[in-house]
Amino acid sequence: MTTTPTVPEEFHIFDTSLRDGAQQEGLRLSVADKLRIAGYLDELGVTFIEGGWPGANPADTQFFVEAKELELRNSKLVAFGATRKAGATAATDPLTKALVDAGTDYICIVAKSHDEHVTRALRTTLDENLEMVTDTVTYLREQGKHVFVDCEHFFDGYRANPEYALSVVRAASEAGAEVVILCDTNGGMLPSWMGDVVSAAAQTGANLGIHCHNDTGCAVANTLAAVEAGVMHVQGTFNGYGERTGNADLSAVIPNLQIKFGWELLPPANLAEITRVSHAIALVANQPLLGRQPYVGASSFAHKAGLHASAIKVDANLYQHIDPTLVGNDMRMLISDMAGRANIQIKGDQLGFDLSDRELAARVTERVKAKEAEGYSYESSDASFEMLLRDELGLLPQPFQVTSWRVFTEERHGETISEATVKITAKGKQEMVVGEGNGPVNALDHALRKAIAAAYPAVESFELTDYSVRLLDEGHGTDATVRVLINTSYEGSTWTTVGVGTNVIEASWEALFDALVYGIFTHVEPELRPETAA
Amino acid sequence: MTTTPTVPEEFHIFDTSLRDGAQQEGLRLSVADKLRIAGYLDELGVTFIEGGWPGANPADTQFFVEAKELELRNSKLVAFGATRKAGATAATDPLTKALVDAGTDYICIVAKSHDEHVTRALRTTLDENLEMVTDTVTYLREQGKHVFVDCEHFFDGYRANPEYALSVVRAASEAGAEVVILCDTNGGMLPSWMGDVVSAAAQTGANLGIHCHNDTGCAVANTLAAVEAGVMHVQGTFNGYGERTGNADLSAVIPNLQIKFGWELLPPANLAEITRVSHAIALVANQPLLGRQPYVGASSFAHKAGLHASAIKVDANLYQHIDPTLVGNDMRMLISDMAGRANIQIKGDQLGFDLSDRELAARVTERVKAKEAEGYSYESSDASFEMLLRDELGLLPQPFQVTSWRVFTEERHGETISEATVKITAKGKQEMVVGEGNGPVNALDHALRKAIAAAYPAVESFELTDYSVRLLDEGHGTDATVRVLINTSYEGSTWTTVGVGTNVIEASWEALFDALVYGIFTHVEPELRPETAA
Repeated sequence: MTTTPTVPEEFHIFDTSLRDGAQQEGLRLSVADKLRIAGYLDELGVTFIEGGWPGANPADTQFFVEAKELELRNSKLVAFGATRKAGATAATDPLTKALVDAGTDYICIVAKSHDEHVTRALRTTLDENLEMVTDTVTYLREQGKHVFVDCEHFFDGYRANPEYALSVVRAASEAGAEVVILCDTNGGMLPSWMGDVVSAAAQTGANLGIHCHNDTGCAVANTLAAVEAGVMHVQGTFNGYGERTGNADLSAVIPNLQIKFGWELLPPANLAEITRVSHAIALVANQPLLGRQPYVGASSFAHKAGLHASAIKVDANLYQHIDPTLVGNDMRMLISDMAGRANIQIKGDQLGFDLSDRELAARVTERVKAKEAEGYSYESSDASFEMLLRDELGLLPQPFQVTSWRVFTEERHGETISEATVKITAKGKQEMVVGEGNGPVNALDHALRKAIAAAYPAVESFELTDYSVRLLDEGHGTDATVRVLINTSYEGSTWTTVGVGTNVIEASWEALFDALVYGIFTHVEPELRPETAA
Repeated sequence: MTTTPTVPEEFHIFDTSLRDGAQQEGLRLSVADKLRIAGYLDELGVTFIEGGWPGANPADTQFFVEAKELELRNSKLVAFGATRKAGATAATDPLTKALVDAGTDYICIVAKSHDEHVTRALRTTLDENLEMVTDTVTYLREQGKHVFVDCEHFFDGYRANPEYALSVVRAASEAGAEVVILCDTNGGMLPSWMGDVVSAAAQTGANLGIHCHNDTGCAVANTLAAVEAGVMHVQGTFNGYGERTGNADLSAVIPNLQIKFGWELLPPANLAEITRVSHAIALVANQPLLGRQPYVGASSFAHKAGLHASAIKVDANLYQHIDPTLVGNDMRMLISDMAGRANIQIKGDQLGFDLSDRELAARVTERVKAKEAEGYSYESSDASFEMLLRDELGLLPQPFQVTSWRVFTEERHGETISEATVKITAKGKQEMVVGEGNGPVNALDHALRKAIAAAYPAVESFELTDYSVRLLDEGHGTDATVRVLINTSYEGSTWTTVGVGTNVIEASWEALFDALVYGIFTHVEPELRPETAA
């Protein structure tokens, strides 16, 4: 079962996050976003980065202008385009010119390989389509470009008319395309259907690549099946972004090839960056991270069941398919209402508290379960968990006390403003301050930090880096109980606190309050923090 | 490439959403939630519903008590448990008793099949583990139960010690287990590794099942590979819920088997409910819907690129791998800044507006692009798009005017309250009202609807069924621009409106205002709505 193919002499990891990935519903990338993502992909060391379609839209054209300033150390930039118009010549086709002008050494053009798409969508003849492939590839080669050809709808085309689909592969290869990519554009393939088709295409003598979409939930597996059948070039996107169900997820394809097949495609130190790169790309693309994402997800090596937790103490490797550090991820124990004492004890150890006392551990476990029943979640908020633990142990400091707070929002002559008033006591001195903000929580954050800064100036440099609201009982609109998670950063460290309530402002206030208390006793005045007796 | 195995005489779809699915980080199901989900699964018609582990925790025990009242029409309920303790007897083992007392005809027990897990985690001998399997299965059969056996860590166990792993399968089968399930508990398998192992296990003569996790991104494909190798029972969860990366997603496995393999496992009318069921389960489980989810995702048959849109007018089937109605989903055209005029025109048609005038269509397209640049998104808010369109066409009614609004939130003696004041004019009459709420937006919603109800009583029955807030520039904490989406329902129809701003209250107000205006001219006083001149 562990027999795997040997790595080809030449093998390409071709990232199309910036081109095909950007087709995803709700995903929009500015030129600046694309440049940042290209930087991450180069750090990781993918072979090729497809940047977009110069000439098709202004942003993509601009990207290639600004990309000239990028000093890529590991990856090569690719411009995407199409075969020239029917009845024209590549030499005079404006889009082909824009493609050349993009100034990349590598160009990838899409060609139709499904007969019906040629006759009905493109509305030209099968012969003219072949001529368009030959002419465009030949012209681009004459301009000194390396050329890849994406055969669009290849697998559906092969099913409908195998001879014609193969003739497009042959035409591209004979005209000088260095790789001809078989595209499952509609994403309908299954892994066991891949081998025969890829082998048939290989008969043309072309170097083959694969481009899969996830419409059957098999994009990663289809890509591996094509590799096993001999392709030397895999296309995909980070985090599986793409139109409809997305493209093959390179953050799963790469670890599968490198760890499961044992192919060293990236230096191991780079592979260990793949989780960070995947998350950084999600951040720039403004996409939520999927905890369940293979290899790189926050939950992918997280253990919840009390059952497991006790056994994991014996040997973690009995419960994980790879060492998570290979991909820069790590094993996490989750505090949750399914947890037994074992989880709580392991978690306590990690935080430096001795919970070996069974009764104490049981008490903490009970309290966690009660809070989680209310809607709190400590799985993702260690700071709040440590505060709960310290409270239970009588080790929770109170750097300041709140007397009262109020916030209002109104429209004044067409402008919306939020204003908060906060009264607190810190180090024996009372402070009452007012703060403005973009919104009520922002105003409360400003007012509260201003009030506390008199006693603890450092809190002025605390930064609220993430704020998320989650409805806990969907379908109740604004009546729902909400959970607020806040990430606060200070001098390179970040901590997460949680607040719960039916009033989003109240829940936010709770999370803000905990964030400041935790930050103060952890990073500003550690002397405030009583250590565990253990 | 289309050769597929023929459907076995007996084939099981075994859903473990309520047991293994509930292990997912952040997923918590109450007894009531589990009963509702079981109802949906029965409607769809899966063969088996695994409800939980009676005796292991009070909630699961309670589920089986209350489940006796469920009148399942299509599915059979299964209680999950484990082999009896080492050194004990099944007849006297309290957990085995709890399992029998659950009162289901079908029981699934987990058995260790990896030698190291037996000796190091379970800390017993390999022989005693076999004895535990035989004794427990035999005892349960004597109680008149149908028994399934999950072989935990089977694939890792087979790699470590094939003889032992197979001996566990044999012991279970010989003791009377009707199906022995091969579990890829750590999820490290690849599809091409499946065939040999499943074939080896088949040599024991046992009826085989498969249970996959998604740690390599191949859970669905691994499941299909096992089916191709001859298993007659597939386990999975809806939407792929489960520990770490989750389990095989039945909402992809079922359509793959039924549509791609051509096996009629469910009546076609039931298969057409799978999208609804998948979404209903997500709602009860309080999990966000993944737009990219194969077959059932909101984006799975959505087309964005202007390139496609024009060709889709020719024949949609050239651009989709199946007819989306087979799974109760549908093809959508997305309005987006990557859209050409074609999308806008198709969308306009769907809404009953004639945008064949190129200049008009271009003007609307420009306006959509400008708004989307600000952060608006019309992909998911058709109501706001129609209002934009009507505004551009001079066909947007104004059922009421807002003079001013204000909302504040404060803590009064330990209690947090939100209070909103709204002044409006409708049908010539001015109204100024105050409303309270769980939070500022809730208070504004109450005040605004109360004010308008004087002129349009029906709005009292409008229900705000969903409210979601999205940060548009992550990493800016509460300073970020936010997008608010609001779903409003009235007499069975639901519409979505969008609001954008740096102030979440302002953005929410905009979405609330549009929701009421749209609802009034669409559902309450259609005579207010001027029709398109076209």
